[in-house]
Amino acid sequence: MQIARIIGTIVASQKDERLTGKKLLIVRPLNLDGSDTNSYVVAVDTVGAGFHERVLIVAGSSARLASGMKDVPVDAAIIGVIDTVDVELD
Amino acid sequence: MQIARIIGTIVASQKDERLTGKKLLIVRPLNLDGSDTNSYVVAVDTVGAGFHERVLIVAGSSARLASGMKDVPVDAAIIGVIDTVDVELD
Amino acid sequence: MQIARIIGTIVASQKDERLTGKKLLIVRPLNLDGSDTNSYVVAVDTVGAGFHERVLIVAGSSARLASGMKDVPVDAAIIGVIDTVDVELD
Amino acid sequence: MQIARIIGTIVASQKDERLTGKKLLIVRPLNLDGSDTNSYVVAVDTVGAGFHERVLIVAGSSARLASGMKDVPVDAAIIGVIDTVDVELD
Amino acid sequence: MQIARIIGTIVASQKDERLTGKKLLIVRPLNLDGSDTNSYVVAVDTVGAGFHERVLIVAGSSARLASGMKDVPVDAAIIGVIDTVDVELD
Repeated sequence: MQIARIIGTIVASQKDERLTGKKLLIVRPLNLDGSDTNSYVVAVDTVGAGFHERVLIVAGSSARLASGMKDVPVDAAIIGVIDTVDVELD
Repeated sequence: MQIARIIGTIVASQKDERLTGKKLLIVRPLNLDGSDTNSYVVAVDTVGAGFHERVLIVAGSSARLASGMKDVPVDAAIIGVIDTVDVELD
Repeated sequence: MQIARIIGTIVASQKDERLTGKKLLIVRPLNLDGSDTNSYVVAVDTVGAGFHERVLIVAGSSARLASGMKDVPVDAAIIGVIDTVDVELD
Repeated sequence: MQIARIIGTIVASQKDERLTGKKLLIVRPLNLDGSDTNSYVVAVDTVGAGFHERVLIVAGSSARLASGMKDVPVDAAIIGVIDTVDVELD
Repeated sequence: MQIARIIGTIVASQKDERLTGKKLLIVRPLNLDGSDTNSYVVAVDTVGAGFHERVLIVAGSSARLASGMKDVPVDAAIIGVIDTVDVELD
């Protein structure tokens, strides 16, 4: 899984019907010091996360195990809102 | 998922029979400022997207969940045409 | 999927029994201008592609959906011989 | 699989319900000389690994085969605590 | 699949029980000129490969299709010992 931050939204009216009603968010993976990386992923929200919140992202086939995503063509899902990250670097 | 732009097509007459009638498009993932990246992917269109449109791409096993792709050997599919991308960078 | 070119072969006599009789080819993903990238993949041929031909490669679990690959431990398969690539860059 | 070192923890109270009670750890893949890489992954612990220990990480759908992870939306799991790594470089 | 060379072993006594008796080897993907890359992967041996031999590696969910790996949490497996690699570069 990856730590990311929600930075945007996508609207697509012409889409796979199983995506209807799903919230597509743009998230940026974060570095361990909390700064943004330059990459991004479009992930479906499954936990009601808010804008700019730090979230936990799952990728690949496991995204379809997220709540409500069975048989939905998604490869990335937000599965948690992160309260604290505790890292001890050497 | 990724945001991409359709930039080309592929014709292959000798191919896996389950690909018959599928539209194979060349798409370029986009940066968040709307510019093209240098990479590309061949994706199967499942939503009737038009040339140069911005589209949503799903990769991996989830591409087989896109409409009409069950048991088809594809690893990338266009699952939406993007109307708007709204990003708020710091 | 990726566009690639067949550049070599592999012989392995001691191998997983389900690979018996499968043709293992070395392919190089191509750039959109037709030039070779520096990377390579070993892919199983499922369409009778010829040496140096441009082919379409599928990767990951979808490679097992290619013809004759059910339950075979492969993660990349040649699923088409490419006739034409038509790209319009800006 | 990858060799990694446990360097931190994540707390997320608002999350997918199947993650309840799972221990989410931040691990850094290691180079073969034992030094840290710059990347990190959030992995679920399934073997009771301790802080700073070297562990074995499995990624992708196989993470759901780790103990207790069936149908859980995870894409990385700790599946072993490494005693010794024996490498002979040229 | 990838061409790799076996360069080491891992011992892990505290591990997922389905890994018991499996041989975990450290392999380095090779360049096409036969030289080592800088990366490495931990792969489970399923064909009785010997130290320093060139082997064929399968990654992702397909590693679980290798002999004896059904339902085992592995994402990379050695599925062949390579006799010859024949490449014709331009």
